[in-house]
Amino acid sequence: MKIDGKHYRSVWLDADGWSVRIFDQTLLPWRVQQLRLTEELQVAEAITTMRVRGAPLIGAVAAYGLALAVRRDPSDAAMEAAAAMLGATRPTAINLRWALEKMLGALRNQPREARAALAYQVAGEIADDDVATCRSIGEHTLPLIKDAAAKGRANILTHCNAGWLATVDYGTALSGIFQAHDAGIPVHVWVDETRPRNQGAALTAFELAAHGVPHTLIADNAGGHLMQHGQVDMVIVGTDRVTRQGDVANKIGTYLKALAARDNNVPFHVACPHSTIDWRVRDGVAEIPIEERGEAEVTDMTGQLPDGTVAKVRIANPGTRAANPAFDVTPARLVTSIITERGACPASQAGLERLYPEHAAG
Amino acid sequence: MKIDGKHYRSVWLDADGWSVRIFDQTLLPWRVQQLRLTEELQVAEAITTMRVRGAPLIGAVAAYGLALAVRRDPSDAAMEAAAAMLGATRPTAINLRWALEKMLGALRNQPREARAALAYQVAGEIADDDVATCRSIGEHTLPLIKDAAAKGRANILTHCNAGWLATVDYGTALSGIFQAHDAGIPVHVWVDETRPRNQGAALTAFELAAHGVPHTLIADNAGGHLMQHGQVDMVIVGTDRVTRQGDVANKIGTYLKALAARDNNVPFHVACPHSTIDWRVRDGVAEIPIEERGEAEVTDMTGQLPDGTVAKVRIANPGTRAANPAFDVTPARLVTSIITERGACPASQAGLERLYPEHAAG
Repeated sequence: MKIDGKHYRSVWLDADGWSVRIFDQTLLPWRVQQLRLTEELQVAEAITTMRVRGAPLIGAVAAYGLALAVRRDPSDAAMEAAAAMLGATRPTAINLRWALEKMLGALRNQPREARAALAYQVAGEIADDDVATCRSIGEHTLPLIKDAAAKGRANILTHCNAGWLATVDYGTALSGIFQAHDAGIPVHVWVDETRPRNQGAALTAFELAAHGVPHTLIADNAGGHLMQHGQVDMVIVGTDRVTRQGDVANKIGTYLKALAARDNNVPFHVACPHSTIDWRVRDGVAEIPIEERGEAEVTDMTGQLPDGTVAKVRIANPGTRAANPAFDVTPARLVTSIITERGACPASQAGLERLYPEHAAG
Repeated sequence: MKIDGKHYRSVWLDADGWSVRIFDQTLLPWRVQQLRLTEELQVAEAITTMRVRGAPLIGAVAAYGLALAVRRDPSDAAMEAAAAMLGATRPTAINLRWALEKMLGALRNQPREARAALAYQVAGEIADDDVATCRSIGEHTLPLIKDAAAKGRANILTHCNAGWLATVDYGTALSGIFQAHDAGIPVHVWVDETRPRNQGAALTAFELAAHGVPHTLIADNAGGHLMQHGQVDMVIVGTDRVTRQGDVANKIGTYLKALAARDNNVPFHVACPHSTIDWRVRDGVAEIPIEERGEAEVTDMTGQLPDGTVAKVRIANPGTRAANPAFDVTPARLVTSIITERGACPASQAGLERLYPEHAAG
């Protein structure tokens, strides 16, 4: 990703070689501010408060968080406790568990004195793998966008943020959009605001603007109307967890867009790195834990006052309480295809197992 | 409607007997402020800027606006010009046209000197009719809520505001909810925030709180998830225009909730006064004009700062443009029933014509 012409990842090692740098995404788009994290509790706080968010990114950041912990105390007890603490920060995205299990798998049964170096090495591999994976997802998305643009311009609707900022680089759903734009394919993105945290209005719009991709912000409520009137050629979203049968957990509201896409014969694609597939789970609605976040995310809203300062306003009736489920599950039957780094497949057990034969049920 | 124990309508004549009083709904829930309107241009401004909104209410207010115009100049030319000006304030709600046509039908061919008194009389009848109509709609909604509460508590989801503040009194979708609550039937309302103007968070929550009805605010994105998990027993919404075949125009996002209701076998009811049925139109998606409002409604948000002052913040990425269609159309096939002052019927030409035989096609 580029900010003011300079290339960044969404998480990287500081020049000191051990501390971890991120952007504080809660300050975007108003302020581009880096944070330097030096211990695993800071990492956990950054994930919980969504200074970093996006399923692939929180996996990579958690891996670096475990490296920080192991650097200070490489004992089994400390390492396992740190992994458990980091793993409990957010419940829905499976990448968090995937990354921590990968780390622990590499570190357990290794001599303590070797663990710190190994932890940084594996965390780095997780980050590099995510970059390569996201680039490939974009390459496999490109032909779909090219087809949609055959008649002039591809109008793509996306929900939440599945771009650079949700991954280590490139993004998932947006990776193909950036690549299409760079290849001269005319694209225009309908950006769902994505209440309650406005990741669309704040982050996706920021990324698309920074990259020069034409886009229009809409209320989450508007997508069905646009599809009814032929103004959406395809939907592409990211995901926090895909089950073996192809059910898709993603930001709350995704399911509504999938229903509208089906009702209007609009293709609904899910961009999904291998690390987001949970092979242990089948029925997404019944089995995926849905995070319930604080009600202030619904009742209050952060934005910029006319004088440029950033402030929080309460938008709800005083005294009214709110519920805030952060994700929903889109059943596989509503998903046109799942686009992974290995290509696109139907959202089904057969489709996923064809792409990942090493995970096929016995 | 009661505010602090005192009964009000949403529009009424001032003690002077001719000027028109409303609440400035753009200031709710933070400030309860009456406005006194003395000429039709003020009325048009109040409708356009949504100081008054809600299909039935803008019909009644426009009728009073025409009375103000006729009071000052009862000539044919002035009366017709004022009606055209008031009729152009908002395009989607049919009640506006219905009320103005009713007024003109009564006033045309009457002697000029009789017109002012007649105009106030007919506007008063329109307002009184709306009150009686809304009370009846509630009475016909009550058995449905009672059924849903048989197992303990009726969980009802609503979108936008279709309560007192959207009508002259009682409301449409909320009328039955208020009556159920008053009758001791346990109800709980999921209140859709209703972006971009937050009529749910600001107005519906305000009304329900004022009446003591248990309710929970949710992001518009959350309804599908709640339905998937059995937490919604029925959806009741208002409408801005119902076509002869039962298609329903309502606040943007209604269509998405109807899709989710259908996908989860949740009944989806539309509360609709006779004045909201447009017998001249059949295909809602093709024929109902959808108002496109300003983009600042999407990019900016009004709320209360911690110090109690009300401020506007920009929530979107600076420079990003927005689109703002204000309504969408829910096809009749997704509507369980239309509840009018004459009872509930299927959302179909046959259903509506059975309730309104005087409008049956020849």
